[in-house]
Parts: sequence; structure tokens; C-alpha cells
Amino acid sequence: MRMYDIIEKKKNKLSLTKEEIAFFVKGYVSNEIPDYQISSLLMAIVLNGMDDIEVTNLTLAMANSGDKLKLDFNAVDKHSTGGVGDKTTLIITPIVACLDCKVAKMSGKGLGYTGGTIDKLESIPNFKVQLSDEEFINQINDINVSIISQTKNIAPADKKIYALRDVTATVESIPLIASSIMSKKIASGAKNLVLDIKVGSGAFMKNINDATKLGQTMVNIGKNASINTVAILTNMNEPLGNSIGNNLEVLEAIKVLKGNGPKDITDISIELASYMVSITNKITYEEAKTKVMEVLNNGQALNRFYELIKYQGGDISKLIHNSKYEYKVYAKECGYITKMDTAKIGKISSMLGAGRIKKDDLIDYNAGIVLNKKINDYINKNDLLATLYTNKELNLSNEYLSSLEISDKPIENKLILGVIK
Amino acid sequence: MRMYDIIEKKKNKLSLTKEEIAFFVKGYVSNEIPDYQISSLLMAIVLNGMDDIEVTNLTLAMANSGDKLKLDFNAVDKHSTGGVGDKTTLIITPIVACLDCKVAKMSGKGLGYTGGTIDKLESIPNFKVQLSDEEFINQINDINVSIISQTKNIAPADKKIYALRDVTATVESIPLIASSIMSKKIASGAKNLVLDIKVGSGAFMKNINDATKLGQTMVNIGKNASINTVAILTNMNEPLGNSIGNNLEVLEAIKVLKGNGPKDITDISIELASYMVSITNKITYEEAKTKVMEVLNNGQALNRFYELIKYQGGDISKLIHNSKYEYKVYAKECGYITKMDTAKIGKISSMLGAGRIKKDDLIDYNAGIVLNKKINDYINKNDLLATLYTNKELNLSNEYLSSLEISDKPIENKLILGVIK
Repeated sequence: MRMYDIIEKKKNKLSLTKEEIAFFVKGYVSNEIPDYQISSLLMAIVLNGMDDIEVTNLTLAMANSGDKLKLDFNAVDKHSTGGVGDKTTLIITPIVACLDCKVAKMSGKGLGYTGGTIDKLESIPNFKVQLSDEEFINQINDINVSIISQTKNIAPADKKIYALRDVTATVESIPLIASSIMSKKIASGAKNLVLDIKVGSGAFMKNINDATKLGQTMVNIGKNASINTVAILTNMNEPLGNSIGNNLEVLEAIKVLKGNGPKDITDISIELASYMVSITNKITYEEAKTKVMEVLNNGQALNRFYELIKYQGGDISKLIHNSKYEYKVYAKECGYITKMDTAKIGKISSMLGAGRIKKDDLIDYNAGIVLNKKINDYINKNDLLATLYTNKELNLSNEYLSSLEISDKPIENKLILGVIK
Repeated sequence: MRMYDIIEKKKNKLSLTKEEIAFFVKGYVSNEIPDYQISSLLMAIVLNGMDDIEVTNLTLAMANSGDKLKLDFNAVDKHSTGGVGDKTTLIITPIVACLDCKVAKMSGKGLGYTGGTIDKLESIPNFKVQLSDEEFINQINDINVSIISQTKNIAPADKKIYALRDVTATVESIPLIASSIMSKKIASGAKNLVLDIKVGSGAFMKNINDATKLGQTMVNIGKNASINTVAILTNMNEPLGNSIGNNLEVLEAIKVLKGNGPKDITDISIELASYMVSITNKITYEEAKTKVMEVLNNGQALNRFYELIKYQGGDISKLIHNSKYEYKVYAKECGYITKMDTAKIGKISSMLGAGRIKKDDLIDYNAGIVLNKKINDYINKNDLLATLYTNKELNLSNEYLSSLEISDKPIENKLILGVIK
């Protein structure tokens, strides 16, 4: 088998066989196939696509390229394609843990304008994100949930291919995005998976058509790999909830678990948790939702979150939000907010210190944004729109203002845009 | 300017600016841009194409990447896209040199199944293919023609890009092929150029549509670069003439110049020479053809070829074809030859010793094939089809036989398929 012929085939819009896909994935990880041949193939995949069988084979080849977590229980996982203010993992995992669902979650750090669950958890004083295999499994056996930082050699082929895509303009491709995500999830041992596919100005998928295709592709991969998979398409045309930034988001997650969080983040958490419980315990969505509401309302989920934090060494009582500077952003005109450049707002939060621009940047857990007005809120001149928290002397109020569009009529703004099973 | 954005643009089917093209060509030659970004861009060009302005800018950027021959006369050049048995350069250059056309020709060595002019000339005992700049120019001033091996640093960007295309399945692309050829011709200083675009089983362009597009693209580049350019589409569904192999082809060129060569190679030589004379001396094709026939018929062209050989140290009297083995190929059935796998016949000739499989292979100047029957010849069982000459004990008769198709009716077989001005 020659790499040249594999590139040639994809260039000519032909389907690659399982063996051909395994050949290039293995050859790339072992450095036998050079970057320049893989990047040429990647561009051919971006432009000529892959069918469902190819995507599944690519996913499995990447999943098999490194360590695989073997869980001897019916684990459930959730994956979000990345948004701004998205703290759903903190809310959902304790909920489903109360309902006989086991969550062995390995999460990533944030990069660019989206936050990472691990950073949020690390904003809780003393919280440990690195556990031994034994500690990890013991905790799950005990309280059904543990969230740790990914340290294993999970899907190294995906890591290497992603790094190359990142410098060769071959990131935007549904087969490549879908196989990248699913390869990591498969190697992480989940048997049930709920995908939260974000759509809109703060998401990688800017429109519903692309998001639907991505969701369909991932659900198909799941089916082919014997993983119960559901994809939920959700709105990312505005930040989720009212808080962006690490400890601000932990505090908002607690609010949601207490029943007094913002409506959008509460609703989406209930939706995702209900699907997780439904597919894992093989009950209807409606049955699952009733149970979810129960553990939310009776405080069980909140307690489970506190247990999780305590189990991993965290001290929630020491979590106090404070920052040296607070910049208040006031409205200069009146009307309805009809557009928020969510990626831009995410970048502003990063610049304030809440995120990483480069991989090794340090994070300021207290930096972030609290939003007072969101889409379809009517604002008057001089209304407080948001507060920017930072320890840098850096006023980004004008940048924040310019990320909003004000009009005289509200717009349609749905939270859940579709479900793909 | 970032290479990433250039790849992204071409991926999205946008046109690259002159500055962007110059940026990546320069950056690649200076090793500032890595192979993997260029190969990704090349695949995007293969699949998304380039418009005429982009192709011209790419051509000029590559032509400007190394040495440029500055000729202070109105030089004419010919380029063939590569065929089997194509010895036209040996015939045409002395013809046009008799008609006030100056030819400062730098030729290449053969690789794969096509022969190279330089190898053919080197099969003449003592022929020197390396001359100093002064010797080269003096000879042209004296007898209007010199043919040397390309030793200068002509279009190094093309060389580097070609090497990468060769291993990334990005060779077949009209913009890339056209710019590759034209960049070398522009750097070689010709003001007038006749392109012989081969079409068929022994050519890179397998069909007339692709060949027409390639011709049109190169003629446009020529126009944009102020070079009088004509492209002739010619048949390469069978070898040109009856001889393949280095000194066999020199001997056949002499036959043509003596007026008793095979009809196809004679006709094509007259056609190409007439266009060269026409565009260089600004006379009509018909006027040019009359003059070409004159110098062919009165022996002037033959004498000029002898002068060329003598000027470059060659001794034609010592050119005697002989080989240790002669394998005769006889017909096993009767009918018309209607198909010849010309690339395969070229490869057989290479394997006999006439060509190079790898860059550094030594050539056997006496190896080759003499064809007795070609397309539309009626053959009877046991008729001699060809003789394979070699110094290896290697009988490829069956391979030769299997490259032919015999049918009961002749086919249409035109030599000149079109002219693009």
C-alpha cells in the first residue's frame, strides 16, 4: 500500500477502504508518513468529503491509536462542541449521578475564546484534577461521578492530525471534526453519549445546516461503534447564562443547582441531563425529565456537586469571587438587543484574563464578565449591560459595546434547535 | 501575510493575488514555508483551480525564482509535453536555424517512459552537451542553433514544487502543469514559443479536452508574459516515427532530414517548424511552410544538423547502432492494429536500457525498439511487428505484443488535432 495512491484516490473522490485509512493513521503516528502527504490528503478530504463508512473507520483508527479506557460499567458522557459561558458539565454531571448514571469524565482545558471545564474546576481552591486510575474509579463507584484532566495518551493520532489541520487550513470539515471528537469519546470508554452541538455566532458551526450534518455524522459514527448517541443542537448566538469566567461560572452552576439560575442555562442543563438519563437507563425522555426535575428541586443534585468537589479535595467555602478592577458597561441607546457577537465576547473574557490565547498562558480565575442584558432584553440609555472583572488595568467596555446590535423589535430566539437520534 | 490565510482562500475557491502567490513561492524556495503547508495549498489548487491571472502570476513568480537567461536576439523555442519516439527537436531546430531563427535550446534528460533530447544527442560519440555561456552564444551567432543540457539554476521554485507534487498526488492539474512548463521557458529567454501538446495513450494528457485546456492556459500565459506562443495538439496514441531509443532516434532524425523518414514524424516536424518560423519571422504559416519544405528538400537542414553536431564536438561518422540481443516480435493473429499502449511501449524501451527508471540510472544508447507496424497497418499472422534491441538478456516480446490491440477495421487516426494561437 502506498500513501501516494491513497491521496490520489481521495483526490479523485473515491472512498477509502478501512485498510487504507488504518494505514495512513498508523503510518502518521509512527512518523513513517510525512506531514506533507497527510496535509495533502486532509485538504482532499476537506474538499471531496468522506462517506459515513469512511468517517467511522477514520474514527476507530484514531480511537485505537493510543490508550483506551476500559470501564466495566455502563458509563455516560456528554460532549459540547464548545461555547461561551457553557458550564453545563458542572450542572449535569451531579444531576445524572443522582439517577444511577455513572460519569467517568476526562475534560480538557480551554483554548481560544471557549472555556474549559478543568479550568473552571481548578478555580475552586484545592480542587485536584489529577487522580490515579484507582482513585478515579473508586470515586465513580462511590458517588457515580468524577471529572479529571485528560492525562492519558488518548487518541494520539487525532492529536497529531489536529495539530496539522490547525496550520494547514483544514480544520473546517464535518468528517474531520466528527471523527476527531468521536475518536476521543470512544477511547474514553463511554457507552452512552449526549452531544451538545452549538450553533451560532459563538460556535464553530455558524448555521443550522452544518450543525445538523455534523450531528448526523456523529450519531452515525456512534451507531456504527455501538455507542448510544444523541445530538442536541443548541443556540450559541449569545453566551449561555449570565456569567463568563472560571469561578463566576462555578458560582452560577451552584445557582442553577439551587433552582435560581438563569433560565437558558437551566433549561439546557435539564434537556441534556434528561437525554443522558434516558439513553443510559433506557427510559423515555419524559420519564427521565421528571426524575431530573426531582433531584434538582429536592437539592440532591446540589449535594452531589458538593460531594464531588469534596471528594476531589476542593473547598467550596473558600471560593470567593473578587477582582481588582470592575468596568461597568452602560447602554448608549435604547431598544432590543438582537445580536451578540458571542465569539468576540468570549475573546474579551479571555483578554480580561479568564482564558488562554496561547497554550501555556496562565489563567486568572477571577476574571470574567457578568451579563445583565441578553438577546431580546429591552434596554434604556444608561442601563447596566455588563460588568467586566479583571486584575489588569484594561478597559474593554467599548469592545463589549461594539459586540452588541440594538434594534427596535425583538427577534426569534430558540434555545433548543433540534435533536438527532 | 500568513500562509494559513492563503491556503484558506484557495480552499474557499477564491483567487489569490499576485502578492500572495509571490509570497508563497518565495517563502517555499527560502524554506520559510514548510512542505506541509505547500502540499495542502497544492491540493486545494488541484481541486479548486486557478484563473488565468493567477496562473500567469504563479508562472512569473517561479520564473523569477532563479537564474534568467537574457538573450539579446529574438530567440524561438519549442517544447513538447513528452512522448515516445519524439525526436522532433533534432529535426526542427536545424530546419528553423536555416530560416533566420535563432534557437538557444536548453534540454532535459529523460525520466520514466519518455526520452530526453540530451540523451539522444549524447548517443552521438563525443557530443558535448555542456558549453560555457560564451561558447553557447557564439555558436548561436554563427549557425543559429545550439542545444545544451540545462545546468543553470532555472526556476528553482518549480523544481522544488514539482518534487513535492510528485509525492503528494498533485501532478495532474492544468494550472500547475502549465505554470511549471512556462516558468522554465520564460526563464530560458525565448521570445517565441511553439508548444507541442501530446494527446493520447503515450501522453500525460489522455484526452483532447484536457489537452485543449492546457494549451489554452499556456497560450494565455505566453500572451500575458509577452511571448508569442502557439500550441499544437498532436496525436500520441502511437509512438512517433518507427524508432524508439537514443541513437536509433538520431538515425531516424537524419532519415527525416534526408527526406526518407516515416510520414508521421516528417509531417509533425514540418508543422512545428512552420509555426516556429511563422511566429518568429512574422510571416504566414503558408509562407513559412514553403520555406521549411525548401530547406528540407535542398539538404540545407540536414547540413545544418551535421554542423550543429560538429560544432559541439560530435562525430556522426562514429555513430553505429549495434546491440548484443535482437528480439523479433511477430504477429500471432491478423487484422488492423487499432490501439498501441504507447506509455507501455515507452516503458519497455526504458527496461531494454534506453531510459531511466530512477534519476541516476545509466542509459544504453543502443537499446530501443524499431517498429515495423503501427496503427491502421494491416498485419498477417507471423508478420514482423517490431525488433527489440538490448544488451540485456531480456526478452520483452510478450509485453510488446500485449501492448497492441488488433481489430478487423481500421480506426480514425489524425496526427494534428488542433492549433491554439
